[in-house]
Amino acid sequence: MSDRTPVQNAELALLLEVTGTPKPGNVDRDREFSDLRFEHFMAGAVGARPGLERAGAGDRLGRAFERAVAGMADQSAGNTQFGALLVLAPLVAAASDGELTPDFVDSVVRGTTVDDAADFYRAFEHVDVAVDDPPDGLEPLDVRRGSDAVPVLEARGLTLFDVMEQSADVDGVAAEWAGQFERVFAAAERILADDGPVSERASRAFVELLAEERDTFVVTRNGPEAAEEVQRRAKAVLDGDEDAAELADDLVERDINPGTTADLVAGALFVALERGLVV
Amino acid sequence: MSDRTPVQNAELALLLEVTGTPKPGNVDRDREFSDLRFEHFMAGAVGARPGLERAGAGDRLGRAFERAVAGMADQSAGNTQFGALLVLAPLVAAASDGELTPDFVDSVVRGTTVDDAADFYRAFEHVDVAVDDPPDGLEPLDVRRGSDAVPVLEARGLTLFDVMEQSADVDGVAAEWAGQFERVFAAAERILADDGPVSERASRAFVELLAEERDTFVVTRNGPEAAEEVQRRAKAVLDGDEDAAELADDLVERDINPGTTADLVAGALFVALERGLVV
Repeated sequence: MSDRTPVQNAELALLLEVTGTPKPGNVDRDREFSDLRFEHFMAGAVGARPGLERAGAGDRLGRAFERAVAGMADQSAGNTQFGALLVLAPLVAAASDGELTPDFVDSVVRGTTVDDAADFYRAFEHVDVAVDDPPDGLEPLDVRRGSDAVPVLEARGLTLFDVMEQSADVDGVAAEWAGQFERVFAAAERILADDGPVSERASRAFVELLAEERDTFVVTRNGPEAAEEVQRRAKAVLDGDEDAAELADDLVERDINPGTTADLVAGALFVALERGLVV
Repeated sequence: MSDRTPVQNAELALLLEVTGTPKPGNVDRDREFSDLRFEHFMAGAVGARPGLERAGAGDRLGRAFERAVAGMADQSAGNTQFGALLVLAPLVAAASDGELTPDFVDSVVRGTTVDDAADFYRAFEHVDVAVDDPPDGLEPLDVRRGSDAVPVLEARGLTLFDVMEQSADVDGVAAEWAGQFERVFAAAERILADDGPVSERASRAFVELLAEERDTFVVTRNGPEAAEEVQRRAKAVLDGDEDAAELADDLVERDINPGTTADLVAGALFVALERGLVV
């Protein structure tokens, strides 16, 4: 078993996530965009570290997340790992408390406060994150308002868990917060049961998650039809009817980027590393 | 200017070094060996961090290096970044003291003690590092003896700087220690003056360093003729008479690995990051 701390494993999970290839539609070791390159993910992971350290030290979870995002954004390409950090922060907090289980992570996220929610909103001031317009009546809580929304959070007494629960239907990361990180823990077990290089396991876990549910980031940016197409073609890859590398090239070409699925892979790699995945 | 600390920049330099491609003969984003893969370099960089933090905190330099090597070796492929850490440790110490200049780094390495030398020998117990047989009369100081050599170091009053100076003719990293890190600082300036993605600048800096002098790691592992061939072909790449990617494939195929040159690139990337290289 490695001597790495949970914070080190979280950083390594971010690095291994982007190392996995092919990860259809996402930046990986073989594919990048001219304005969002592999090197930006390296700098994002290193920059996020002080925030992850706060999560590991038991600081307020929202604040730890906001600091991780601020550090992640300290590179020239903007958002690289916002969603992945939102997955990782509670997992690191739970692991550092010695209990990386669905029940305990659930208690961590349910223990968040209105202050954590305010931190979460502030985190959106560091980077542009593609999000849906809020549902009718929830405009005052549009995350794009950043800290301007904090008085509304306070007036309504909304914790970070409440905020995530409200978005669980439309955001795959929020769904993990609201649902005991079920898909993350399941994917971690598949990664552990898999064999071969970690980068290949990460790629396979990515395609499996992609085939399992529509990627909510694709729904937001490219619409539900694109998300359904991606899910269908990921299933075809698993069935051997489509080539993962070709799917990857096509999605990159069309700027269809299943970012939420990548966020879940980062979480799954973290859990797998904590449970003994050998690199 | 980034808010990253020198320790963060050192870790990022390790990651960017292996991200650069092509780096003829070395593991890079596009080339790896079945038993020494890209992912091992990610884990090596993350594992080295606690040792780099010691260097940044002003701990004894040899001890910081030995801890960095111990953490780097906490992955399944053995040695990934031993030489790079030997380059980085004094640079991080100097930068953390606020003065990353050739003169100040020189004073840092000249300030090492016999205890630092003992730490350096202990570091060889964590990984197998390819080294030459020592010259006649220096067998008691063979680094492969690890801590068994410590009484000899103490009896002779050899500091870590003394040890490096003795090896400067046959080891490119030791030559940097003995010579004010001249090639590292010069390469850093070339990286800063270059343009384009950092991974491409790293690749170009690598080829330039390779063309400039024989790689001592290649001399050790493959002999002087191979090292001369590599230098000659790197010059041909610079002259446009040979393709860098083809040279890379050929050297990987023949297991000719200019590792010392990669170590210098890691150091140069660190200096460039500290001097404002934007990622």
